[in-house]
Amino acid sequence: MTMLALSCVRGCSGLVAFRTAWHLQHLHFVSGITVAQIDEEVSKLLELKARLGGDDGKHQFVLKTPKGTRDYNPKQMAIREKVFNTITRCFKRHGAETIDTPVFELKETLTGKYGEDSKLIYDLKDQGGELLSLRYDLTVPFARYLAMNKITNIKRYHIAKVYRRDNPAMTRGRYREFYQCDFDIAGQYDAMIPDAECLKIVHEILSELELGDFRIKVNDRRILDGMFAVCGVPDDKFRTICSTVDKLDKMPWEDVKKEMVNEKGLSEEAADQIGEYVSLQGGMDLAERLLLDPRMSQSKQACTGLSDIKLLFSYLQLFQVTDRVVFDLSLARGLDYYTGVIYEAVLTQAGVAPVSSDAPNGAEESVSVGSVAGGGRYDGLVGMFDPKGRKVPCVGVSIGIERIFSIMEQKAEASAEKVRTTEVQVLVASAQKNLLEERLRLVTELWNAGIKAEVMYKKNPKLLSQLQLCEETGIPLVAILGEQELKDGVVKLRVVATREEVDISRSDLIGEIKRRTSEA
Amino acid sequence: MTMLALSCVRGCSGLVAFRTAWHLQHLHFVSGITVAQIDEEVSKLLELKARLGGDDGKHQFVLKTPKGTRDYNPKQMAIREKVFNTITRCFKRHGAETIDTPVFELKETLTGKYGEDSKLIYDLKDQGGELLSLRYDLTVPFARYLAMNKITNIKRYHIAKVYRRDNPAMTRGRYREFYQCDFDIAGQYDAMIPDAECLKIVHEILSELELGDFRIKVNDRRILDGMFAVCGVPDDKFRTICSTVDKLDKMPWEDVKKEMVNEKGLSEEAADQIGEYVSLQGGMDLAERLLLDPRMSQSKQACTGLSDIKLLFSYLQLFQVTDRVVFDLSLARGLDYYTGVIYEAVLTQAGVAPVSSDAPNGAEESVSVGSVAGGGRYDGLVGMFDPKGRKVPCVGVSIGIERIFSIMEQKAEASAEKVRTTEVQVLVASAQKNLLEERLRLVTELWNAGIKAEVMYKKNPKLLSQLQLCEETGIPLVAILGEQELKDGVVKLRVVATREEVDISRSDLIGEIKRRTSEA
Repeated sequence: MTMLALSCVRGCSGLVAFRTAWHLQHLHFVSGITVAQIDEEVSKLLELKARLGGDDGKHQFVLKTPKGTRDYNPKQMAIREKVFNTITRCFKRHGAETIDTPVFELKETLTGKYGEDSKLIYDLKDQGGELLSLRYDLTVPFARYLAMNKITNIKRYHIAKVYRRDNPAMTRGRYREFYQCDFDIAGQYDAMIPDAECLKIVHEILSELELGDFRIKVNDRRILDGMFAVCGVPDDKFRTICSTVDKLDKMPWEDVKKEMVNEKGLSEEAADQIGEYVSLQGGMDLAERLLLDPRMSQSKQACTGLSDIKLLFSYLQLFQVTDRVVFDLSLARGLDYYTGVIYEAVLTQAGVAPVSSDAPNGAEESVSVGSVAGGGRYDGLVGMFDPKGRKVPCVGVSIGIERIFSIMEQKAEASAEKVRTTEVQVLVASAQKNLLEERLRLVTELWNAGIKAEVMYKKNPKLLSQLQLCEETGIPLVAILGEQELKDGVVKLRVVATREEVDISRSDLIGEIKRRTSEA
Repeated sequence: MTMLALSCVRGCSGLVAFRTAWHLQHLHFVSGITVAQIDEEVSKLLELKARLGGDDGKHQFVLKTPKGTRDYNPKQMAIREKVFNTITRCFKRHGAETIDTPVFELKETLTGKYGEDSKLIYDLKDQGGELLSLRYDLTVPFARYLAMNKITNIKRYHIAKVYRRDNPAMTRGRYREFYQCDFDIAGQYDAMIPDAECLKIVHEILSELELGDFRIKVNDRRILDGMFAVCGVPDDKFRTICSTVDKLDKMPWEDVKKEMVNEKGLSEEAADQIGEYVSLQGGMDLAERLLLDPRMSQSKQACTGLSDIKLLFSYLQLFQVTDRVVFDLSLARGLDYYTGVIYEAVLTQAGVAPVSSDAPNGAEESVSVGSVAGGGRYDGLVGMFDPKGRKVPCVGVSIGIERIFSIMEQKAEASAEKVRTTEVQVLVASAQKNLLEERLRLVTELWNAGIKAEVMYKKNPKLLSQLQLCEETGIPLVAILGEQELKDGVVKLRVVATREEVDISRSDLIGEIKRRTSEA
């Protein structure tokens, strides 16, 4: 009865929703409808929806995580822990501290920082009090933190989840909730030294994780802006044309050009000139060549950027990482806040990159190989938060950890080696019945000595099932108690792999276990 | 101009809000006002507010974190990392795996799990798609995870942030965003063995963290329910009377009784009978005495609970933790989902517990000493998620980590020892000008050898300022380069603490640094 009544209400609300959607689409053609009226209708619908959701929760229960999110099972967590340890070790090797910020910020803290992507921000419901949004990245909260605490220099890393209401593509590691691993250097320093260290860090991390071959593309916002200027792009179109250039890693040049000309209203001539530049790739030599380019050299901004690229490459040589770094004029990166050097690391070995199965245009996606790190210089962001506009120059990098997880998981699946999800060294087992108390007594001794140990939570488990548990979970040792062992004051220590057994006196047991497990 | 206009609108909206609040309070007395009308007015107000927030973001910018939340600075993070490591080590010692779940769940997943506390759940704004809420604890997501993946036994820990729109009391470590450290054992096992292990874990963690003296109070929902039954509490009042009993650690009995009689409508006689029981504390002996109590023994449920308490204490003896455990009939715990044993750990050394400064009734708060862990058995929760209602018995514990952080921070402040926020072992420094390239070359060698090292990001830093940096941040060694050292193929290695300096040949440097830093 309840179900029937509800589904009828659902049907009606569906109709209303359709009508509203139509209104919203045709808003600019229909006169006599105000924004307020629409808002009202929308909020009424949402109220209705909320109430329906609240009432029938128990009847039509859906057992799932929200769209674009996932649980991590113990095996995935073991892999995740390994990856995080590698990354954290690298950040610490470079002298970084760490901070943490709340998962949500005041809505206004995020306003005006992400350009066209702002629509992807999750807002919290207004339940009275402040208007809040989930963080979209770790960079804006970092800038807010610096301004709020008047910090003018810090080298910090931050590993935490961020939130984007994007179209999820989970097989390729694109989620609505995902981790970012950020490393940033804030402070007024000599040019390009911290910038080069960020690239060194990307190089170290991607090498250590053994993800296969990779390239780090480098460019500079000032070179892009200078290029747009000398190619005749109007000032007010820089940002939007920049977003279009950013699509070059996913679309062929012809389509990018079409978007520039047809959608963004750029002249065909300007687009063609941009097309020539964005096809260029090289190293320090390319920067030198462009400094002599008759058109490019007209832009003072471009020349500053090009000189800095030269300086950057000289430091990268000292850091021994130029083998993987390419100066690439097609690299744009969409975010509004970048002001200088920008970079992005991509895996170039097609084999390891997960092939898309959920993209509408699968063929094209399977060619594009994933970005696994990105970042750049953002000298203006902290100033946006400071009441007096005081600037704190910053440069940083974000490791695209979710894609790395996907690859590592695939590698683990493909490998014969079993991923252990616990670290237990010893199972305390019994050979006969009625020895629960003795098992609990012994496992307490082991725990108190810092040994990782378990007992089965049964009064009288069979010895076979205790041994099977060890096989299944990879526990290397079993400490077996029986009537005879208790009488003799010993424990039978069994090595699971070899089935070798030896009696150890009770007083030597802890030392013996420590000796054997530190060997491994 | 803008400011003036806005504050005028603000004033008006304030009046409307007041009127609405009045309507809401008097809803059941006023005829002719429907819930829908109220909703409409509320949502109009919220719309207005959102639009105001959106427009004036740049003009009235507030530089803060949301109410009830905080950033962690590097020093706090160093303390946090130490506490998490201690806790994680304990969970791993007991053989736990770990999982992670999304920070938000479908709203309906949380519905009906938290009783009166449901009003504290944060909802996300409906931006189209699913209705979502931030997780309120880690237990309900755990139960959802088990049911969704049809897992019938697991021992897992989960350390993550949860969200409650509670009244923050930040000096006492009560936040709206805070960490929970949960350890749970799911599965059909012999009675009280996993339950006892949870208490053993609380005992180990609180002892290792050296927070001072503590007590672990234990009770059982079945004993409480049986007690309510034999004291004449009507069945439908069990839960609400239970919530009132739960306030006994914050209110004297007289006030609790008043709430039972005046607000919850319980008879004075029933309240007095409850009052006698909830004053009882003891160990296994108390359980034995109550099993013989003429009134209590009439409840079959209470007897089952009391027998289990006896069994629990016998295991706790084997685990060597009875010194800190008390069977306390006043312990209630508010959450709806508990079905058996419940427990809560409190610090009893008044000195270390932070004294409230923000509570309305400060005097009373400074007496109550904080709860730092709590948990219990919840055998029905997973079944609420299973389409066929299949039950998975669970027992678990949650460590109240924020209060522990507060105490550890206070201890660190009081102690003379300086908390290091980085792990850097060597600063690569130069004694003369124009040695940036040499410094970068050397630091690269160190990084590539896995040594934690830094350089100052300046072309020509003074030696003094390089040495000062080491003093400030606790870097123990300096590798100093000069013209002479470069000529001789050596590096001057300086120990910051002793100012002792020694020339080391370039090829021996890495070995020497590793030797010296592993000594420490």
